[in-house]
Amino acid sequence: MALKSFVEVGPESHFPLENLPYGVFRHLEVEGEGEGEGGVSHSSSRPCVAIGDYVLDLSVIAAAGLFDGPILKSNYQCFLQPSLNMFLGMGRPAWKEARSTIQKLLSAEEPKLRDDKSLREKSLLPMEKVQMLLPAKIGDYTDFFSSMHHAKNCGTIFRGPENPIPQNWFHLPIAYHGRASSIVISGTDIIRPRGQGPPIGNSPPYFGPSQKLDFELEMAAVVGPGNDLGKPVDVNTAEDHIFGLVLMNDWSARDIQAWEYVPLGPFLGKSFGTTLSPWIVTLDALEPFACDAPKQEPHPLPYLAEKKSKSYDIPLEVHIKPAGQKHSSIVTRSNFNHLYWTLTQQVAHHTINGCNLRPGDLLGTGTISGPDPESLGCLLELTWNGQKPLSLNASVRKFLEDGDEITFTGCCKGNGYNVGFGTCSGKILPAPQ
Amino acid sequence: MALKSFVEVGPESHFPLENLPYGVFRHLEVEGEGEGEGGVSHSSSRPCVAIGDYVLDLSVIAAAGLFDGPILKSNYQCFLQPSLNMFLGMGRPAWKEARSTIQKLLSAEEPKLRDDKSLREKSLLPMEKVQMLLPAKIGDYTDFFSSMHHAKNCGTIFRGPENPIPQNWFHLPIAYHGRASSIVISGTDIIRPRGQGPPIGNSPPYFGPSQKLDFELEMAAVVGPGNDLGKPVDVNTAEDHIFGLVLMNDWSARDIQAWEYVPLGPFLGKSFGTTLSPWIVTLDALEPFACDAPKQEPHPLPYLAEKKSKSYDIPLEVHIKPAGQKHSSIVTRSNFNHLYWTLTQQVAHHTINGCNLRPGDLLGTGTISGPDPESLGCLLELTWNGQKPLSLNASVRKFLEDGDEITFTGCCKGNGYNVGFGTCSGKILPAPQ
Ligand SMILES: [Ca+2]
Ligand SMILES: [Ca+2]
Ligand SMILES: [Mg+2]
Ligand SMILES: [Mg+2]
Ligand code: NI
Repeated sequence: MALKSFVEVGPESHFPLENLPYGVFRHLEVEGEGEGEGGVSHSSSRPCVAIGDYVLDLSVIAAAGLFDGPILKSNYQCFLQPSLNMFLGMGRPAWKEARSTIQKLLSAEEPKLRDDKSLREKSLLPMEKVQMLLPAKIGDYTDFFSSMHHAKNCGTIFRGPENPIPQNWFHLPIAYHGRASSIVISGTDIIRPRGQGPPIGNSPPYFGPSQKLDFELEMAAVVGPGNDLGKPVDVNTAEDHIFGLVLMNDWSARDIQAWEYVPLGPFLGKSFGTTLSPWIVTLDALEPFACDAPKQEPHPLPYLAEKKSKSYDIPLEVHIKPAGQKHSSIVTRSNFNHLYWTLTQQVAHHTINGCNLRPGDLLGTGTISGPDPESLGCLLELTWNGQKPLSLNASVRKFLEDGDEITFTGCCKGNGYNVGFGTCSGKILPAPQ
Repeated sequence: MALKSFVEVGPESHFPLENLPYGVFRHLEVEGEGEGEGGVSHSSSRPCVAIGDYVLDLSVIAAAGLFDGPILKSNYQCFLQPSLNMFLGMGRPAWKEARSTIQKLLSAEEPKLRDDKSLREKSLLPMEKVQMLLPAKIGDYTDFFSSMHHAKNCGTIFRGPENPIPQNWFHLPIAYHGRASSIVISGTDIIRPRGQGPPIGNSPPYFGPSQKLDFELEMAAVVGPGNDLGKPVDVNTAEDHIFGLVLMNDWSARDIQAWEYVPLGPFLGKSFGTTLSPWIVTLDALEPFACDAPKQEPHPLPYLAEKKSKSYDIPLEVHIKPAGQKHSSIVTRSNFNHLYWTLTQQVAHHTINGCNLRPGDLLGTGTISGPDPESLGCLLELTWNGQKPLSLNASVRKFLEDGDEITFTGCCKGNGYNVGFGTCSGKILPAPQ
């Protein structure tokens, strides 16, 4: 049975009292306030949670003294920051206390906020009146490669059907370092990258706008407390280091990537933009949707062998809306639970060499493809590298065209309520001349 | 002829008036001051330049109103920051003005500081009384692969003598994203990483302390003003985006790297630590040592074709001191001018897809190997993957052993003066149990 808030929450809403995802916003009406540089605070950006079609401004709630639990009473400053990093670093006891305080404060029975018109008007803002920002300062962004179906399909397309999955894949969660500077919030336009593509025959390499622009359906974990350099995180306590999940589009230029990636991996084929959904859905909110992760064979090495191997049942969709079309087409229905490696294994592997994670770091899952043709997480797989174009209402696609708008959604279905992620979207603009 | 300062500068010093490299320090005597998190200022860390065996505290000079040029007069706050990022973002006109102000202030003829005992005592601190810190907040760290000799040797070792250099190498400066969180300042111990190595035959992969721990002799460019997402930097103006250079040791675990790097590139084999020298030597100080870069054949694509192709004559050395030995052995003598791709080409390539650079970003050159056997920049090459052990006084090395201390130096020889980089060093500690 669904919990009841005094704020109206429609039955299809992603953001009922059971969810309470965290984000950072600023008022749309505030103008002329520049973004600070080099760590200067922006007075106008602050943490919030989503409830129905509203954001609850946590800086107002904190300033009103309503975080009165044992941890946050003396640490409410975490909600007066321009990003969530301080709160992220405080760990699960603080997160659980904040969740319980906010859940109570917004519940139908609790008068504190419900009956205080002035505080309500100051703290509850319609979503259309605010602009969502990146929820955290992301020090480092790592992208994994944890879907076996994606690994198999890419290997088959690029290297042929014999042994498409590299030998190391089943022994460790493969990953690469991504580019943090070009991570943008949902709704930011993506400029088609220019770059080099593979030469044909003896001619020089192709140079120009990417001709194989793609999306990658991913989710990403946001790191909570970090670890010190030289101190690996144990796989069985790794969950304490993960705050929650967002949707992520790891935009990829397949022609640039194909030419550049040997021997040091993807670089400019990825670094022109990566889009995040604004709401971090906490692992606590996702707990009712926890399920077993797929069985792993061969059995992982001891540092990756966990007592409980947990995944989450999170249905995911990809929608494409070509320029000028009224409606979007669904091209992918996938699920987080298709991933082979778990979030906790990713953390344990990432730190086994002593590498330090910091609060706000981002760990992408890799493209989330499932076993079925309609569950593939990128056009490279959906169109088999352009060989089988995809029909979208009136048009067809091998890869993305200028004006295409790509939207990811993800939503867990509970008993009478949703725990949703909202949307992660971006529109392709033409390359510079 | 050498310039003369009222501060004593020995003839072998790396830091005469011609150099004036920038760093960030804190007083050693200040105790109990924790590091701030999430952008909070540390009152105790501040910018400085090196002169002889002293650091000149730029926050004191700025507060005394001695930056009186047209730009810095109203922007001296850049020297009251805990990092150089704000100053880096201001660009070359500000950098040139600061250099000229500081050079005059420290010169033998100028009484302002020379004859003000109280200001001198406050601003000029013996190097042994201060601790050097990372000079900038590094948002993103990229590592290139710009030495042809290194590319050829690695290719031969890993893939054999036929076509050891990948086809793309001559068309673009290959690079990968590195890990920013684990970049440390010279003098920080490096803990031997644990991880997976390649399986032998049908057994499971190796797991344990890396058995092929290596150094990589590199330099790195520190980015000044950045560029907006979607706006590439032209190769002919790219120098405006580079503040200066540091020495860098890109520690590498060859066994971990060999097993993990297909298909997404180096990850845990590199991310356990990267050491920087504390002093950023500016391109302005390096200008007398500019030279032509090697001729490039095939001719690069237009976006990489520059009017003037500039390198620098910077002799570099690698010293190894095993635990318990009194003296170190020089194992490498190389030079920055062995690099094939230029710094400006690296910037142009990095941004051609629209990727944004930010002030303080770090661009590593890749291992700087020259053509001669004694000019190879890592043990992988020097010992040919352990097949030809190296003699160090009383001991031999295939790869690094616990207790080994590795020190890089770099020093340009002028007419009666040096422009040096100081040292970049780190000692190997045993892996955790
Ligand atoms: Ca990806
Ligand atoms: Ca390197
Ligand atoms: Mg990306
Ligand atoms: Mg490194
Ligand atoms: Ni700080």
